[in-house]
Amino acid sequence: MPTANPILIPELRVMLAENDVAGLREVAEELHPATVAEFSEGLDDGEVWGLLDSVPVERQAEIFPYYPMPRQVELVKAADRPHLGSLLEWMAPDNRDDLLRELDPELVEEILPLVAKAERHDIRMLLSCPEGSAGSMMTTEYASLPADITAGEAIARLRSQAPNSESIYYIYVLDQERTLVGFVSLRDLILAKPTALVCDLMQRDVIGVRVEEPREQVVQKLARFDFLAIPVVDDRQRLVGIVTHDDVLDAVRQEATDDAQRIAAIAPLGEGYLEAALVSMTWKRGVWLAILFATAAVTAMVLAKWRSPHAWLVAFIPLVIASGGNSGNQSATLVITALSSGDCRLSDWRRILKREFVVGLLLGAMLSLPGYLLGLAYAPSAVHALVIPATILSVVMVGTLVGSVLPLAFRSIGLDPALMSNPFVSAIVDVVGIVIYMGIALVVLG
Amino acid sequence: MPTANPILIPELRVMLAENDVAGLREVAEELHPATVAEFSEGLDDGEVWGLLDSVPVERQAEIFPYYPMPRQVELVKAADRPHLGSLLEWMAPDNRDDLLRELDPELVEEILPLVAKAERHDIRMLLSCPEGSAGSMMTTEYASLPADITAGEAIARLRSQAPNSESIYYIYVLDQERTLVGFVSLRDLILAKPTALVCDLMQRDVIGVRVEEPREQVVQKLARFDFLAIPVVDDRQRLVGIVTHDDVLDAVRQEATDDAQRIAAIAPLGEGYLEAALVSMTWKRGVWLAILFATAAVTAMVLAKWRSPHAWLVAFIPLVIASGGNSGNQSATLVITALSSGDCRLSDWRRILKREFVVGLLLGAMLSLPGYLLGLAYAPSAVHALVIPATILSVVMVGTLVGSVLPLAFRSIGLDPALMSNPFVSAIVDVVGIVIYMGIALVVLG
Repeated sequence: MPTANPILIPELRVMLAENDVAGLREVAEELHPATVAEFSEGLDDGEVWGLLDSVPVERQAEIFPYYPMPRQVELVKAADRPHLGSLLEWMAPDNRDDLLRELDPELVEEILPLVAKAERHDIRMLLSCPEGSAGSMMTTEYASLPADITAGEAIARLRSQAPNSESIYYIYVLDQERTLVGFVSLRDLILAKPTALVCDLMQRDVIGVRVEEPREQVVQKLARFDFLAIPVVDDRQRLVGIVTHDDVLDAVRQEATDDAQRIAAIAPLGEGYLEAALVSMTWKRGVWLAILFATAAVTAMVLAKWRSPHAWLVAFIPLVIASGGNSGNQSATLVITALSSGDCRLSDWRRILKREFVVGLLLGAMLSLPGYLLGLAYAPSAVHALVIPATILSVVMVGTLVGSVLPLAFRSIGLDPALMSNPFVSAIVDVVGIVIYMGIALVVLG
Repeated sequence: MPTANPILIPELRVMLAENDVAGLREVAEELHPATVAEFSEGLDDGEVWGLLDSVPVERQAEIFPYYPMPRQVELVKAADRPHLGSLLEWMAPDNRDDLLRELDPELVEEILPLVAKAERHDIRMLLSCPEGSAGSMMTTEYASLPADITAGEAIARLRSQAPNSESIYYIYVLDQERTLVGFVSLRDLILAKPTALVCDLMQRDVIGVRVEEPREQVVQKLARFDFLAIPVVDDRQRLVGIVTHDDVLDAVRQEATDDAQRIAAIAPLGEGYLEAALVSMTWKRGVWLAILFATAAVTAMVLAKWRSPHAWLVAFIPLVIASGGNSGNQSATLVITALSSGDCRLSDWRRILKREFVVGLLLGAMLSLPGYLLGLAYAPSAVHALVIPATILSVVMVGTLVGSVLPLAFRSIGLDPALMSNPFVSAIVDVVGIVIYMGIALVVLG
C-alpha cells in the first residue's frame, strides 16, 4: 500500500534548480494534495512557491491548506499580492477563513481588494462569525436544488454545477427565500427513478445548527447522526453554509489535545509540540505554574503557623495532600470529560454530586485502612495513629466534592471547566487538606 | 430547526398500551434512527421491542445501533433468539461486530447458528481481528467494481447493488483476485462522460491501511487526507473492508475521553459517566489511587527519617513537591498528546528531551525568585533561605525530565504512555523531590 511516496527533498531541489517544470508539475498534479504538502514541507518558502507555480492556481488552492497553519502564514507573507488574491479566490471558503483568521488584520485588508467581489462578500461574512461558532467552521460551498424538479433534472444540474467532493453528497432543498426545507442525498437521487420529484425523495426533518451555535454542539449533532455534513442556518432558517465531516474531525482532535493540556494546567499550545517556540511554550506553562506556585505558597504559610509537638505528623503531610489532590483530580477530569463529550449536562449536577459523594466515601474508606497501618508504624500509640485514617477519609471526600463542584460551577458561569478547574482544585484541596490535618490532630492529640 | 421532536415517553406508552401499531410505525419509520433511539431510551426493554416490532427488521437494524452499548446488550438479553438472528443479519457489519464483542462468548455461540451462513463467515472474520486494530473498526459492506467497465455501466451496477449510505460514495476497483487497484468517487462517476472507462477515471495511488494496523494509524490517515472512508487490505493487498468517517469520529472522541481519564489516573470507564456502575467506577479509580497512595507512603517513610533542627523547612514540603509534580505533569501531558496525535514520534526523543531541558531550566529559574522571597520570610538568614530556590530549580528540572522521559520509555516498550505515566511521574518526582530538599538543606545548613 503506497502510503509514503519516495520523492524526496533533494530530488525536488534538483528539479527546481534545473527549472524542470514538467517534473514539478507531475509531482504536484498526480499525488494527493496532502502528500504534496507533506513532501515539500522541508523546502524553503521560495522553493515551495516554485513547486506550486508549476500547476494552475486551482490546484495550488487544493494543496495549500494541507501545509501546517504556521507554514501557511509564512508562505502568504513570502508571496506576491496579486498571486495571493487569486489563490484565495480558489481556496475552499472554510480553509480560507481558517487562514485569514491567523493573518494580521492589516494584511487581510491589504489583500481583500485583490479578491473578486462575490468571494469578498463571503469572506467578510465568515470572518464576522465568532471564533468557535458553527459559522466559523462552515464552508459556503454547498449543493442546493429547488423542490419541484425531478431526480433526473437534479443530477443534470449537479453535473453542470460540478460541486467539489466535500459537498456533492448531500444536496439541500431550498425554497425561493433560500429557506431550508429538506435535504436529499446523492445516493437517493441515483437510486430513484429519474422521473421522481425531489420533493418526494427529500427528507423534511432536517437536523442542522444555527450559525452562532458553539462548536461542541456541531460536533455532537454530526457525530450522533453519522452525517457527512450538517447544514448551518440563520435565525430565519435560511441556509448559509455547511460544516463537513473532515472539519469536525479536525476540530475534535484539536479540542481533545487542547483539553488535555488545559487539564494539566497548560494554556493550549495550538500548534505542534515540536513547532511551538520555546519562549511561547515556557510562557504557556509558566503562567499556570506561577498560579499553582502561589496557591502552594498559601499552603506553606498555613503550615508555617503549625508548631505541633508531634514531630511524626510531618512525615504524612505529602501523603495527606496527595490523597486529596489525586482524588480531586480524578473527579474533575471525569466531570470535565463528561461535560465536553455531551455525556452529562449542567442540569445533572445533583446526580453528579451524589455519585461523587458515594464514591468519595468508598475511596476514602478504602485508603484509610493502609493509612492506619502506616500511621501505627510511626505514631507513639494506636489512638494517636487514628489521626491518619480520619484525615485521609475527610481529605479524599473534600477532594472528590471540590473536584466535581468546580467544573460545574465554572461551566455554569460560562467559563471553560477544563481551563479553570485544575489550579483551583489543587489550591483548595491542598490548603483545606492541611487545615483538616491540623484540626484532627488537635482534636485527637490535644 | 427541529432537533428534538416533541414525542414523549408517555405518548409512546399510550400507543403501546393501545397496541396502536400504525402510530408506533410512524414514529419508528419517519424519524432519523438516532432520534428514534433517543426518544425511546426511557422505555423498558419489553416496550422498546414493542416499538421496534412495529417496523420491518431492516429498519430495526438501523435503529438498534443508536442505543448506548450497555442498553443494546440488555435488549439482546431480553429478545427471543430467532428474532435476534435476523436482526443481526440486517445490522451493518461494523455495528454488529461492536455489539458481539460486548456479549458473553457463550451467548454469541448460541446466536450464531441462527444467522445466515454468509453473514456468519463475515462475523467470525471481524471478531477474529484484535481489538483496536483497523480490522475491528471496519465494515465488510463496500461498493466495488471491475476496472474495465464504463462510468454509465458502473452507475447502473451501483443502482442494482443499492449499497447503503455509508459506503456508496467511494467505489473500490478490484482485479480478479480482489486486489485493490484503485478507487473512484461517486462524484467522479456522475461528472464523467457515461462512456468513459472506470480505469481511466480511477485514482491509482490508493491510500489505505492493513487489517492489523492500530486504530491510531487509521485515524491519522483518514484525518490527514480528509477521506470519507479508508480501505482495509490484507497482506496480499486484497480488499477486506473499509473504515468509514463516522466510526473514526466515534473512535477519536472515545479515545480522547479515555486518554484524559488515563492521564488523571483512572482506568477508562468506557461508558458514560452517569451510566457507569458506582462499584465499577470506584474500582477503576481505587486501583490507581491505591498505587499512588503506595508511592506517597514511600515519600512518607523517607520523610520520617528526616530529623532536621531547622523546623521552618517543614512548611515548604508541599511547595517543593507541588512544583516538581506540576511541571512533571505538564511535560508528561505534552509528550503524551504529541505522541497520540501523531505530532511527534518516538524517534524525535532527542529533540523532545532537549526542549524539556531548556524549558525546565527556564521554568525552574522563574519559580526560584518568588521561592527565595518566600524563603526569606521564614528562614533565619538570607543564606539559609537559599535552600528554597536551589531546591525548586532542581525539582522542576527533575519533574520536566521525568515527565518527558517516562512516556517515551513506556511507548518504546509498547505500553500505553497515557496509562502508565502519571503514577510513575508522581512517585519518582515526589520521592526525588524530598531527597533533593533534604540533600540541599544538609549542604547549605550543615
